[in-house]
Amino acid sequence: MPVNLIAPERAALESVAGVEIGTAMAGIRKPGRRDLLVMRIARNATVAGVFTMNRFRAAPVQVCEEHLRASGGAVRALLVNTGCANAGTGQPGLANARRSCALLAVALGCQPAQVLPFSTGVILEHLPMDRLAGGIDLAVANLGAGDWLDAAQAIMTTDTIPKGVSVRVPIGERTVTVTGIAKGAGMIRPNMATMLGYVATDAAIAQPLLERWTREIADASFNRVTVDGDTSTNDSLVLIASGAAGVTVTHGSDPGGAPLKAALLAVAQQLAQALIRDGEGATKFITIAVEQAASAAEAAAVAYAIAHSPLVKTAFFASDPNLGRILAAIGYSGIADLDVDAIELYLDDIHVATGGGRHPDYREQDGQRVMKQAEIEVRVLLARGDHATTVWTCDLTHDYVSINADYRS
Amino acid sequence: MPVNLIAPERAALESVAGVEIGTAMAGIRKPGRRDLLVMRIARNATVAGVFTMNRFRAAPVQVCEEHLRASGGAVRALLVNTGCANAGTGQPGLANARRSCALLAVALGCQPAQVLPFSTGVILEHLPMDRLAGGIDLAVANLGAGDWLDAAQAIMTTDTIPKGVSVRVPIGERTVTVTGIAKGAGMIRPNMATMLGYVATDAAIAQPLLERWTREIADASFNRVTVDGDTSTNDSLVLIASGAAGVTVTHGSDPGGAPLKAALLAVAQQLAQALIRDGEGATKFITIAVEQAASAAEAAAVAYAIAHSPLVKTAFFASDPNLGRILAAIGYSGIADLDVDAIELYLDDIHVATGGGRHPDYREQDGQRVMKQAEIEVRVLLARGDHATTVWTCDLTHDYVSINADYRS
Repeated sequence: MPVNLIAPERAALESVAGVEIGTAMAGIRKPGRRDLLVMRIARNATVAGVFTMNRFRAAPVQVCEEHLRASGGAVRALLVNTGCANAGTGQPGLANARRSCALLAVALGCQPAQVLPFSTGVILEHLPMDRLAGGIDLAVANLGAGDWLDAAQAIMTTDTIPKGVSVRVPIGERTVTVTGIAKGAGMIRPNMATMLGYVATDAAIAQPLLERWTREIADASFNRVTVDGDTSTNDSLVLIASGAAGVTVTHGSDPGGAPLKAALLAVAQQLAQALIRDGEGATKFITIAVEQAASAAEAAAVAYAIAHSPLVKTAFFASDPNLGRILAAIGYSGIADLDVDAIELYLDDIHVATGGGRHPDYREQDGQRVMKQAEIEVRVLLARGDHATTVWTCDLTHDYVSINADYRS
Repeated sequence: MPVNLIAPERAALESVAGVEIGTAMAGIRKPGRRDLLVMRIARNATVAGVFTMNRFRAAPVQVCEEHLRASGGAVRALLVNTGCANAGTGQPGLANARRSCALLAVALGCQPAQVLPFSTGVILEHLPMDRLAGGIDLAVANLGAGDWLDAAQAIMTTDTIPKGVSVRVPIGERTVTVTGIAKGAGMIRPNMATMLGYVATDAAIAQPLLERWTREIADASFNRVTVDGDTSTNDSLVLIASGAAGVTVTHGSDPGGAPLKAALLAVAQQLAQALIRDGEGATKFITIAVEQAASAAEAAAVAYAIAHSPLVKTAFFASDPNLGRILAAIGYSGIADLDVDAIELYLDDIHVATGGGRHPDYREQDGQRVMKQAEIEVRVLLARGDHATTVWTCDLTHDYVSINADYRS
């Protein structure tokens, strides 16, 4: 049961002029489910992406990077399959990723380097190229202005509900649309998650600016969520600016630059948080805010130590204010000269710890009340500087174990 | 159900001349269980310890370090309680730890700085000093040559069985005894675990040598095990050399130095592995051997990335040869210039991955056969150098979640 997250209404996901969508049931892993997505992108659109930091980069990630470089962002199509990650597949996997781009390029009349491939699913298995080819034909045949909910469904793996967000933002006399979809529920951590995210706008955004914004937006959204600390081999976030709305942003300081970036970030953050709300087995949505750190890296180290601690995560599951586990995680986060007596710890508005121990006014029943909530904020003040970060995570539950113990069976 | 681990026979744990043992049911947290241990150590014995790297070092850990410095290793007694970790307790916690040493010092006629205190259990709660004082009196009253099984029982928390090992080693014309006990089942990871370990020998070992050996032995035993990656606030390993056997080792190269160190290491490694075999919810005992690393740190980073991955650990639980999860963990272990095509991966004797993908001879049923075993070795060859390390861990199971979600209730 996702935490305070419901599937978007079909009508709530706005089409983005200049981006067409086609989906198919290709039977990549199992028959009878939508598992293939083609996005056709208007000529003159700009496209940018950021990809996993895992050294075992899947074949499609390597090909995405190649094709983005070769095309200079003049991408005409995305091809996404679920059911097989095409990761840990060596040279044959690379050949399959390239061949799948070539198949779609022929069907759409563009260059193979103008197609970006994405795969998600089981690692160490090869793409079934015959079924993939059949799926491409089916998806191309139903390309249209597009049902983004279908697209969101076509990229799901262990997600329990499709994830999509739209916002519309007035810029000058026009209105720009931003619509995004994402998938991912486990193997989620920064840099990045088992996560595929696609955010499109009908504004035009100059290629260098789009590339910078993609990095910055990823850093403040998908790179700030963690389910289990596992960085996947396939994570990809792609921003598409089709230009069909007649609004052009070349520099961040251009008119419309700020509201457009804010809209893109809002969509990316909502999608990133949706991954956590639908995190494998999640029953709680946890916000971890670390303030007064000496550096951004230090703030992140403390936030992730808390977010990754199995003991902290099981205590959230149990609604158990076993707050010493949070202090212990802060203590092993790697800050050699940390003065634990200077740390302040809050659970929502409850002041839990001070002076190296329990706050004198803290009462167990107050902690208990907060821990029973479906949404909880852990706030840590380090008293070392003025850097801060926020990370979103979920609890560790029986269902997490069940989902990951049973995934392939 | 511990993995291939049974409680030691009472008679199998040899007494160590020069070390007396007393235990009590002090009712620290719950009545009717043995929760307090006193060890009295012969005059002229040497004692050394290593302690948690967690910055939230519990009060007793801070006092241990103080007292070891102040006494120069001339320690006369250890005092251990379970039920309350006396961690995250600020200045009152320090005062309680010091006062408990003073109470035992009075009872035994030594200096407070010759007593080392240890606590394990719930964090953020204060020691019940009245019950602790009563327990000290009871334990001192029954001091005797000692039943080490009672001692092992008196230090358990979530352990399901007591952990103790004895070995006897001939040195020259004499025989030296090494007996150790340990506790800990969760919050276990290097530097160090929620772990208390005490290893005593009746050999005499010069203080500087004992201190060096303690660090080296901890590094090759308790610092090489992990259940959940959580480093506790209270971890302590203490080596005691009573000198009662009439064998003296001053330098590592002295006659008897090598076999004595090997015996101490064997006891420490068996105890460390026992923690994993009795790891919270464990059903599998996993050995992770990383070879051909460019440095020791790199070998450890890869081994721990695998050992801490919830996805790898749930796959072990499910007996699922989802080996891509292991490759993904190697990929995100932080080696920036890792050539994934050069890595070789084995499950026991099965060659699983090569050339960046599945080994051509690998068959799923072979992987499946190994994964069903209760003991599994994961072997990774990095082709980068000649450093190696071995880490021991367990799987992540429903019972782990249950134990940690219910611990305080």
